[in-house]
Amino acid sequence: MTNATRTASGRRRNEEARLAILTAAYELTAEAGYPDLTVEGIAARAGAGKQTVYRWWPTKADILLEALALKADLKVSTADQGSFRAELDTFLRDSATLLAFPGVVPVLRSLMAEAQRDADFRRRFQDGFLTRRRAALETIVDRAAARGDKPPHLTPDLAADVVFGLVWYRVLATERLLEDEDVTAIRRLLTDRSGKE
Amino acid sequence: MTNATRTASGRRRNEEARLAILTAAYELTAEAGYPDLTVEGIAARAGAGKQTVYRWWPTKADILLEALALKADLKVSTADQGSFRAELDTFLRDSATLLAFPGVVPVLRSLMAEAQRDADFRRRFQDGFLTRRRAALETIVDRAAARGDKPPHLTPDLAADVVFGLVWYRVLATERLLEDEDVTAIRRLLTDRSGKE
Repeated sequence: MTNATRTASGRRRNEEARLAILTAAYELTAEAGYPDLTVEGIAARAGAGKQTVYRWWPTKADILLEALALKADLKVSTADQGSFRAELDTFLRDSATLLAFPGVVPVLRSLMAEAQRDADFRRRFQDGFLTRRRAALETIVDRAAARGDKPPHLTPDLAADVVFGLVWYRVLATERLLEDEDVTAIRRLLTDRSGKE
Repeated sequence: MTNATRTASGRRRNEEARLAILTAAYELTAEAGYPDLTVEGIAARAGAGKQTVYRWWPTKADILLEALALKADLKVSTADQGSFRAELDTFLRDSATLLAFPGVVPVLRSLMAEAQRDADFRRRFQDGFLTRRRAALETIVDRAAARGDKPPHLTPDLAADVVFGLVWYRVLATERLLEDEDVTAIRRLLTDRSGKE
């Protein structure tokens, strides 16, 4: 076994351990709630050592943050479909499906509440989750701009504020999530190309 | 003194005591933060008995909720100006000014975090604050509809989701509040009348 294969297989084992820890954190929160979640419990479920977990993440909230960010990357498509309208529609529908998945709303609520309590975590939450989600939507808006398919006054920032504003408001403040009519209303609002001032 | 004057002056004294308690709760939170806020401290600052406070509000969060709702009613104008665009602009600018007022953001963050922790409080927060703010914006959208001044696809609900979604997202997830360019962008997005599908 060469050094290169040893390093590659070590990297793969690390990656598998990370995924097991992320999955364990997510499942335990969905099953029993965030207040009862502990790093010990996550390590036990994942078959990992507690020290391994702490080497990679400072708190249980940081593990959940990464689990959610990964889930969102995998479930919410930003693939090129040749039209801004179609891609925004897919982004919103995929987000609605993700929100309706068991455990997602409680985890999001817990993370945002933690971010209010702990300003350091809020910054890590911004960098590791919120900014990453904004960047996903930005790829769609930027592609629309390159294609000449973007409404004149719509910036990636405004699109992100409207979409994620609505999602978070619904998650935190209501019992309603994103329904079909919401997806249509937001997509219509953001794709309208009149550009009237 | 007749019964009627006695009742009226009793009502006035009650109203004064309520206002003193709301002011005390708000000031103490702005000064020392929500975690250190206690009903005892609020009662002492307001010169009221603890029992009086508990007769009117179940928790410290409920007092703050009412203090904020009152402040928002007073500071964010919904007056008729003859045009949807002007009224929405005022509503957004007044909201931006209110958010920049010392103590408002920490209080909003504390209330929303409490709403994640306590589902009963979340319902009272919805009824006593969030729905009340939505209703304020709704009067503007309804007046625009009556005047024939409303973009065809804009509903009061969509307007509220976009405006309050953005406000809450900024308050909870970022260090940026509503700036002039945000007010312009949101106002433009919501007043565009093309109605293209």
